[in-house]
Formats: sequence, structure tokens, C-alpha cells
Amino acid sequence: MRNDCVFCAILDGEVPCFKVYEDDTVLAYLDINPFADGHTLVIPKKHVTGILASDDELLAQVVSRVKKIARHIVETLGADGFNILQNNGEAAGQSVFHLHFHIIPRRKGEPLSFTPAKGDLGRLERMAARLHFEDGAGVL
Amino acid sequence: MRNDCVFCAILDGEVPCFKVYEDDTVLAYLDINPFADGHTLVIPKKHVTGILASDDELLAQVVSRVKKIARHIVETLGADGFNILQNNGEAAGQSVFHLHFHIIPRRKGEPLSFTPAKGDLGRLERMAARLHFEDGAGVL
Repeated sequence: MRNDCVFCAILDGEVPCFKVYEDDTVLAYLDINPFADGHTLVIPKKHVTGILASDDELLAQVVSRVKKIARHIVETLGADGFNILQNNGEAAGQSVFHLHFHIIPRRKGEPLSFTPAKGDLGRLERMAARLHFEDGAGVL
Repeated sequence: MRNDCVFCAILDGEVPCFKVYEDDTVLAYLDINPFADGHTLVIPKKHVTGILASDDELLAQVVSRVKKIARHIVETLGADGFNILQNNGEAAGQSVFHLHFHIIPRRKGEPLSFTPAKGDLGRLERMAARLHFEDGAGVL
């Protein structure tokens, strides 16, 4: 945990989030400035700044969750595809320096936007209720 | 190997590439329609269509190489940051259905483009010569 990290504050429960999934290793929640509906962030519970600061074991654990969560999101939304995006450094658009993977569901005919849009809180809340899942719930 | 897969043809040596790195598990080479200078693709030697078709072990191996190759590229170019992008499905911009991770180096002040630009072959050749590395060459 880092005092100056907003993602650590989310992990700590000090800052709320629209939770999608949680286990011992990661937390996943909706991006409040989504590129597309259902845009989700997956973060490790351990604070590391980016991919280069992460050891291979943690990275493998996080990426296996990214895959699992992406599959769930795509199936639940009936999406046609998805992007995995991970930014390192301000020059790459990283704004929070706690490793995070973006899962961005895509639909045919919709623009392939990589630009944040201000999220509507009611819409985000309904999306989180739709996407939220737990292990062993028979969804995987 | 799949007969109808251009990345398998690159792996097989039937189609040339601007190679950056190779080991038993992956091949890395320049994207010929780069989003930015030094834009590199990392592909597993095993043909899998995307992240959902990859088992966790292969995924962990590939992502550890993505990290290693990204570090090398960023250090060699003196880049300020980089994006990791992985597309699944046509709706997400995937055009070759063989798992690949994009490493996109970024520099402060340059646009954060996610749009392919037609690459100049001479420039790509010089970039590949600059970026090419092998394990044990003392670069990592």
C-alpha cells in the first residue's frame, strides 16, 4: 500500500469502486472514464508501478486473471471482441502509477476508441451489477 | 503452424520480417505499419488465435518475454514510456488471428496514436538493426 496511490486507496476501501471481481491477487473494477461500455481495470493487490517493476510470477498471476475476467465480460455482454491495454509512463498515457490492465470490450460497428469518455454513474452502477462475479459461481 | 496464417509463415521463414528477438518460445519483429517508431510485435511460436485460446502457462511465458523485450526497446531507444496492446477479434482491430502483443514505445510530446501508419522499409531496416538483440549479449 502506498499513501499517495489512488488504486491502493481503492484496495484499502477508502475510495469506492464499481467492483467486477476480486480474489487474493487482484481486484477488477470499471474504469469511470471508459473507452467503451464495460471497460474494466485489473490491478494486483501488491503495489508495483508498471510491468517493468513486476516480477514474472506476479505478472503471470495477474495476466491469468485478466484472461479469466475478459472471458467473463465478453460472454456476459455478448461482445464481439476486446482489447487488452497496459500503459507504462506518462508518455504512454499512464495516469495512475500502480500496474493496471485495461479490458476494453468491443462491438462490430462501434468506433475503436482509445479516448476516455466521462462515465455516467448510474450506467456504471448498472454495468457493475451486470458484470460482477465470484469464483465458483458457475460462470467460468 | 497453420497454412493460412501469415505469422506462421514468418515463423517458418517463408515470409521475411524485421527481427528484433527470438528464442524457443517467441519471435519478435517490427510492425510494418507502426503506431510509433520501434513498434514491435511479440508472437508465440505455437499457433493460438488470441488470449482466450492460450493456456495460462504459454501466456505467462509470452508475457515474460514481452516485458524483457519492452525493457530492451525502451532502453535502446531512450523512450519515455510504452504501451502493451493485445487485440482479440476483428471488432477489436485484430487482423491476424495468431496471438500477438504490440509493444509501442512512446516519447513525450508525440501523439498517442493507435492508428497504423505505412512504414518506410529503409527506416524499418535501420530500426531492426538497432533493436535486434540476443540472450546473453549483455544487454539485459
